[in-house]
Amino acid sequence: MAGAPPGGRRVITVYGFSPSGNCHKVRLLLEQTGRDYRWVEKRSDDGSTRTLEMLAKNPNGKVPFIELDDGRVLTESNAILHWLAEGTPFLPVDPWQKAQALSWMFFEQYSHEPYIAVARFICGWTSLDSPRRADLPRLRERGRQALAVMERHLSTNPWFTGDAYGIADIALHAYTGVADHGGISLDAYPAVRQWLQRVEATPGFVPMPGPDAAAQALIDQSR
Amino acid sequence: MAGAPPGGRRVITVYGFSPSGNCHKVRLLLEQTGRDYRWVEKRSDDGSTRTLEMLAKNPNGKVPFIELDDGRVLTESNAILHWLAEGTPFLPVDPWQKAQALSWMFFEQYSHEPYIAVARFICGWTSLDSPRRADLPRLRERGRQALAVMERHLSTNPWFTGDAYGIADIALHAYTGVADHGGISLDAYPAVRQWLQRVEATPGFVPMPGPDAAAQALIDQSR
Repeated sequence: MAGAPPGGRRVITVYGFSPSGNCHKVRLLLEQTGRDYRWVEKRSDDGSTRTLEMLAKNPNGKVPFIELDDGRVLTESNAILHWLAEGTPFLPVDPWQKAQALSWMFFEQYSHEPYIAVARFICGWTSLDSPRRADLPRLRERGRQALAVMERHLSTNPWFTGDAYGIADIALHAYTGVADHGGISLDAYPAVRQWLQRVEATPGFVPMPGPDAAAQALIDQSR
Repeated sequence: MAGAPPGGRRVITVYGFSPSGNCHKVRLLLEQTGRDYRWVEKRSDDGSTRTLEMLAKNPNGKVPFIELDDGRVLTESNAILHWLAEGTPFLPVDPWQKAQALSWMFFEQYSHEPYIAVARFICGWTSLDSPRRADLPRLRERGRQALAVMERHLSTNPWFTGDAYGIADIALHAYTGVADHGGISLDAYPAVRQWLQRVEATPGFVPMPGPDAAAQALIDQSR
């Protein structure tokens, strides 16, 4: 589906934690563009991303990041999506539409992920007595504000990137699709729910792996 | 300095709050590229960005955003920078370096601004008895982590975007230069301090307006 990809036909190594939406974004685009890649699993809840070896690659101590076969590293999920999508149908050519895609991706990282993804992380990957759980009401409220902004856009537009599915949809799908893990219901957002279904029907879509049994048990007790 | 800018020679209207770093980023790039623009001042601490008229332009209720003379709107400070910089010396042509610029801009919005800018906002633009002040120790700690990542990069690189000053520097300068307003000292980050001086010596640099007297008084009482 893709034309000549950035970096030629190099094999890309992704360092990621499979149940992380930020990491899954990268996997989904690689799958949908048919790129070769190698996946190195690194949990982000047990210090594995902050070993000396990992900090030498990403001093910010987070996943995902990608590494090329010459050792060069690119961090930040949405910057990775943008680089991988350049020259493919997943990023529009029109500069204004490209800018809109980036705008939604910054919205995702500033106004959406810090609430919807963090609520999910607290519910599934912290203990039931974690003091972080006191933040959940505020996080859920702010998460719903982000969903309302998405609902408004999707009530008159099928996608976030111009008139076609693309990386802004991939970025926003990641945690919206699992908002209920953090106790945020999508019942009030019908256009968002229909858009999730459209995303999941795109060619080559792969779902994010579910939480493991321990995380699922915590999620079930956090609702 | 710029070539043919995106959108041709249209006049751009910026909606912004002058002492906001996110807003000042846009002004700085417009000044340094010599673009015509009109500035509409909207405070972000008194509901002025969430009126019905403003929400019709940006449903996320934030500034900055830009409006073209045909009414089209682009939100998110770093998406605006990226759009304005395309085809100018402020964004590299090389795809990998472009990706690195975006990576730092996502770092800024996720790992830097929510701590360094928010600590500053709380100190200068909330009352001395605001419950938000309880967050300051955590915000300052996370802000120092972001500065440490920047220090590491700047100890071997003069700029954040390849080998030239560009929009990643503009994005990161905005709140780093006023980190002390939020009670975060730069004493431990000499490479960051030298980089701030290099940024401030670039042609056409304009400083962000200082806080007004009320905000400055709050900042002085928050240290």
